[in-house]
Amino acid sequence: MSEDRYKCGLEKMKEIDDEGGGPVIRSFESVKDASPDMARYVAEFVFGDVFSRPGLDIKYREIAAVAALTALGGTGMVLKAHISGALNVGWSREEITECILQTAVYAGFPKAVNGMFTAKEVFKERDEKTVN
Amino acid sequence: MSEDRYKCGLEKMKEIDDEGGGPVIRSFESVKDASPDMARYVAEFVFGDVFSRPGLDIKYREIAAVAALTALGGTGMVLKAHISGALNVGWSREEITECILQTAVYAGFPKAVNGMFTAKEVFKERDEKTVN
Amino acid sequence: MSEDRYKCGLEKMKEIDDEGGGPVIRSFESVKDASPDMARYVAEFVFGDVFSRPGLDIKYREIAAVAALTALGGTGMVLKAHISGALNVGWSREEITECILQTAVYAGFPKAVNGMFTAKEVFKERDEKTVN
Amino acid sequence: MSEDRYKCGLEKMKEIDDEGGGPVIRSFESVKDASPDMARYVAEFVFGDVFSRPGLDIKYREIAAVAALTALGGTGMVLKAHISGALNVGWSREEITECILQTAVYAGFPKAVNGMFTAKEVFKERDEKTVN
Amino acid sequence: MSEDRYKCGLEKMKEIDDEGGGPVIRSFESVKDASPDMARYVAEFVFGDVFSRPGLDIKYREIAAVAALTALGGTGMVLKAHISGALNVGWSREEITECILQTAVYAGFPKAVNGMFTAKEVFKERDEKTVN
Amino acid sequence: MSEDRYKCGLEKMKEIDDEGGGPVIRSFESVKDASPDMARYVAEFVFGDVFSRPGLDIKYREIAAVAALTALGGTGMVLKAHISGALNVGWSREEITECILQTAVYAGFPKAVNGMFTAKEVFKERDEKTVN
Repeated sequence: MSEDRYKCGLEKMKEIDDEGGGPVIRSFESVKDASPDMARYVAEFVFGDVFSRPGLDIKYREIAAVAALTALGGTGMVLKAHISGALNVGWSREEITECILQTAVYAGFPKAVNGMFTAKEVFKERDEKTVN
Repeated sequence: MSEDRYKCGLEKMKEIDDEGGGPVIRSFESVKDASPDMARYVAEFVFGDVFSRPGLDIKYREIAAVAALTALGGTGMVLKAHISGALNVGWSREEITECILQTAVYAGFPKAVNGMFTAKEVFKERDEKTVN
Repeated sequence: MSEDRYKCGLEKMKEIDDEGGGPVIRSFESVKDASPDMARYVAEFVFGDVFSRPGLDIKYREIAAVAALTALGGTGMVLKAHISGALNVGWSREEITECILQTAVYAGFPKAVNGMFTAKEVFKERDEKTVN
Repeated sequence: MSEDRYKCGLEKMKEIDDEGGGPVIRSFESVKDASPDMARYVAEFVFGDVFSRPGLDIKYREIAAVAALTALGGTGMVLKAHISGALNVGWSREEITECILQTAVYAGFPKAVNGMFTAKEVFKERDEKTVN
Repeated sequence: MSEDRYKCGLEKMKEIDDEGGGPVIRSFESVKDASPDMARYVAEFVFGDVFSRPGLDIKYREIAAVAALTALGGTGMVLKAHISGALNVGWSREEITECILQTAVYAGFPKAVNGMFTAKEVFKERDEKTVN
Repeated sequence: MSEDRYKCGLEKMKEIDDEGGGPVIRSFESVKDASPDMARYVAEFVFGDVFSRPGLDIKYREIAAVAALTALGGTGMVLKAHISGALNVGWSREEITECILQTAVYAGFPKAVNGMFTAKEVFKERDEKTVN
């Protein structure tokens, strides 16, 4: 049922987010604030249906998300959430920046440069959180 | 030196291609036919520099390539080569189609549908090769 | 439940398709052939959830679909299905080509030209069907 | 003549803008400030030629503009002007957000999310204007 | 007047086309066949207004067109017309392929590869015409 | 060797940049700050390999860069660097804004408008530098 898909999606978001809430839940909340219905589809369809499918491990879904979002460009908040998610499911900073660097080949340097700036922001925020 | 980067790139292409030559080398040859200089950069820069970097395993580079190329769309021959490459470095058909299905979320259904058609073509060609 | 969403989506597709089946169902079947799971999401999510929402009449959803798909480009089969759908829910040929012409302003002339060629194809197929 | 097309375009812009001037004229003025010639074509060609064509009602042109601009992304000021325009020619807030939500299907969630944030901004500015 | 802009645009198209008619007029005719109104704007606005402006020599407009169209992708017929046009206003084959190769940097290799294939097609057609 | 390509690329960047350093070196430094490896490829591959090729004069490479980057959109810092570069290799402000205006035809008005705003920023910064 719809309610189960929502719960399942919320669980999946928490699974890739920082403990106690981070960029994934924060960006979900900001979508909810602008459009509760769109947020519902993000929970039910994106995370409840697609991200919860068993055929590809969540770890690989996250690196694929980083690659696709960097290539598309203009996806700020969502890319930040998935770079953070990629770190939380086991990718190293180096692996993530390698993935972003590689998109220069497919989508050109400007998009890859933007992706790299976003990654640097995410890394910096995590460092600051660790220090404090 | 430039010559080493070219050789190294050619090795990397062979590493992800079918044994004895397949869609990766075939698409490289067709680029060479249209522009030897562009093909040289594909060997030297794309595969010699970027794909040979140690920071991300070639297996993960291939799934990232499939995700980025599906999201961008309009990349026919190149996407075919990397779907084939992804199979050759250890991904299952299911994992690849899951990755393509997931791009519907970031890039919309029409791009994901096109990617799925391309995957089906690659799978079919491999099945026919096995039979014969 | 999932089954209801699927049925509801299938009903919505039939509502915008030619009587007895046309480009909408045909393109759905070809997606199903390549990936049954993707087709399921097209039925459940795209048509069952989104297109069945009450807040915007199906007639306006179809003209919005034609505008968005023309602007994005590279969406052949899907654009054909929605041009056909737009005709079936009450838009005239002139209104549809006006909508496509207008996208030249936002997405440039080449995308609008491609959209116009697609519209012409749809119109021609319908004329031939009427004659026979 | 060119002068008539300019006047006709300016009239059309005023027709879809807030009474006494709003986001449509404001964005036109900012284009004029950066490039008077580009602004001239916006008046003459975009609004004087295309938007003034009789084949599609201005109401439907506005919803098509919102759909195409959301799908393309990165069009901030122009999208704001047309969301505002769509409200002024008779669309409800709900119909506009439905149209934006629907583009998630064609252009992916990140673009639709950006469009929703833009809509929310426009709605907020109107609410503040009403209150004061 | 509109009629003058149309004539002026048609002259400009002939100026960049092969003597006696080539890919520029041919692609204009095929647009006219699908939508006479869109073709009218191509003549009046694209070539009559924009391409006829004195501030940038037609030679440089053509190389800019090749760069922009290659970067955008999916513009087949239009790119062909402007590669042909670029040759006719004085660019060498080498300069054009250099321009296309360079777009790999901004738009990624797949788009540049597609552009190179289109250039090769144009060159081949011209060689065949010369021989016969 | 790699070191030579880097030096050659750095020379090429200085050739198109303001004397004593400007937007080209500044944006290179900011890429270096986020990812030294990506910056290395910008120097070695983009400027050392591609921009240093003899087949197309650097003057024409710069106008092609402005056209492609405006058409792609979302490339802020990089477009600024090349508009500045275009001025430094001999293009007038009018020629550059003509090139940007022309991309409205291929990529739509919103992208061209964004490019025009970027050009205006670059011109303003240069005027302020001249005054002080």
